[in-house]
Amino acid sequence: MSDVLKNSRIVLCETHHAGNIGAAARAMKTMGLSALYLVKPENFPSVEATRRASRATAVLERAQVCETLGAALSGVTLAVACSARSRELAVPTMDVRTAAARLAVVAASQPVALVFGNETYGLTTAEVHQCQLIATIPADPQYASLNLAAAVQVFAYELRLAALGGRIVGDSDSAPSDLASHEVVEGFYTQLEAALIETGYLNPAQPKKLMQRMRRLFARAGLEQEEVNILRGVVRTLQTPKKK
Amino acid sequence: MSDVLKNSRIVLCETHHAGNIGAAARAMKTMGLSALYLVKPENFPSVEATRRASRATAVLERAQVCETLGAALSGVTLAVACSARSRELAVPTMDVRTAAARLAVVAASQPVALVFGNETYGLTTAEVHQCQLIATIPADPQYASLNLAAAVQVFAYELRLAALGGRIVGDSDSAPSDLASHEVVEGFYTQLEAALIETGYLNPAQPKKLMQRMRRLFARAGLEQEEVNILRGVVRTLQTPKKK
Repeated sequence: MSDVLKNSRIVLCETHHAGNIGAAARAMKTMGLSALYLVKPENFPSVEATRRASRATAVLERAQVCETLGAALSGVTLAVACSARSRELAVPTMDVRTAAARLAVVAASQPVALVFGNETYGLTTAEVHQCQLIATIPADPQYASLNLAAAVQVFAYELRLAALGGRIVGDSDSAPSDLASHEVVEGFYTQLEAALIETGYLNPAQPKKLMQRMRRLFARAGLEQEEVNILRGVVRTLQTPKKK
Repeated sequence: MSDVLKNSRIVLCETHHAGNIGAAARAMKTMGLSALYLVKPENFPSVEATRRASRATAVLERAQVCETLGAALSGVTLAVACSARSRELAVPTMDVRTAAARLAVVAASQPVALVFGNETYGLTTAEVHQCQLIATIPADPQYASLNLAAAVQVFAYELRLAALGGRIVGDSDSAPSDLASHEVVEGFYTQLEAALIETGYLNPAQPKKLMQRMRRLFARAGLEQEEVNILRGVVRTLQTPKKK
């Protein structure tokens, strides 16, 4: 269990209210989580954050402040976009409990992240697309607006239970063994997109949803490091044959 | 489901901070709960409570302020003492998920209550003895002190899921919708293999396990018909660009 919780980071994007950062730190600590990443927080460190953290100030003190979501996801192999609502995006969506079970399997050996948007708008589409899954809290459709720290509490709670559970049926044969990190997978997408533009398959003026569809496909599979190496080699060689 | 949530009241005993009452109201409303009972709140109504309630002010406006816990439990057939820790008391104790399942059964036809103590000491022994069960959130023993509203959020979340009957939104959104047939997928593999041989990436005399690895990757994802169309177009265009 301890590895699952140690390998799980909470990422808060562009948080407006410092109090929510403190409350999120407290929510984390009660569930045994300690790795907090803050992407461009509006106001941090702050007295209000420290006050609301109660006795979880150590989480705040060790928090990593990052300029970009990509930096906060450095080394992460599974990033989950946490949302109170489902979205019209081509990213696999599941409820928080199912997502926690998935996260726990991966976090047993590799870094994972739960990513939260700001208080007003939640996650942007660009932020969601840096994640492999969307997880939602099944809130009342009439009023699905959980406070940010309350949402962190629910996700952290489910992750803790999944970690405690051991009742995760690990399908070891089909589970990817050595997942590629965020940067590695993004590097593949960048190469693929450039190749598709260069060869004329993708018109950058009218991209439609081609790259989103590719991301959705490979996110479902969960790419291993070695598979990314192969895919990159395939794209490179198809574009520039070793022989003709 | 609606009866379960309508019949479930949240009782907050001697709350110190008005902000927590507002945050609890918000947590309730996101989970479809609306009946809030306040036993001797220190400071209510208050501007801070209203602010933290966000768009759940109707819950505050209809809150019942009571002089005693007994009054708040009037008509209730099952009262659950909510706690972050287990207690040395002769009252049956279970985790929040198990308790929520019990509550949902009773609340289908009769009023039930979730009872929370104040921020400093939690529930007193006398208060717990007015309840039939103790329910705990399995928090980190090192730091089990959830914020009051965060605890309300977790209990309300579990009650909502129990009311929904475990029928939480499953994995259906992420399941591929229109899977490609066996022949279609095989057609893609045949094309890919031929392209890899022609361009020199794959040596048919020493194929290693390249195609097996590709099959394993795409099998994990489960290819949709439309995705196969895109992949075939990608391979074709990379090999024979529309433009150069």
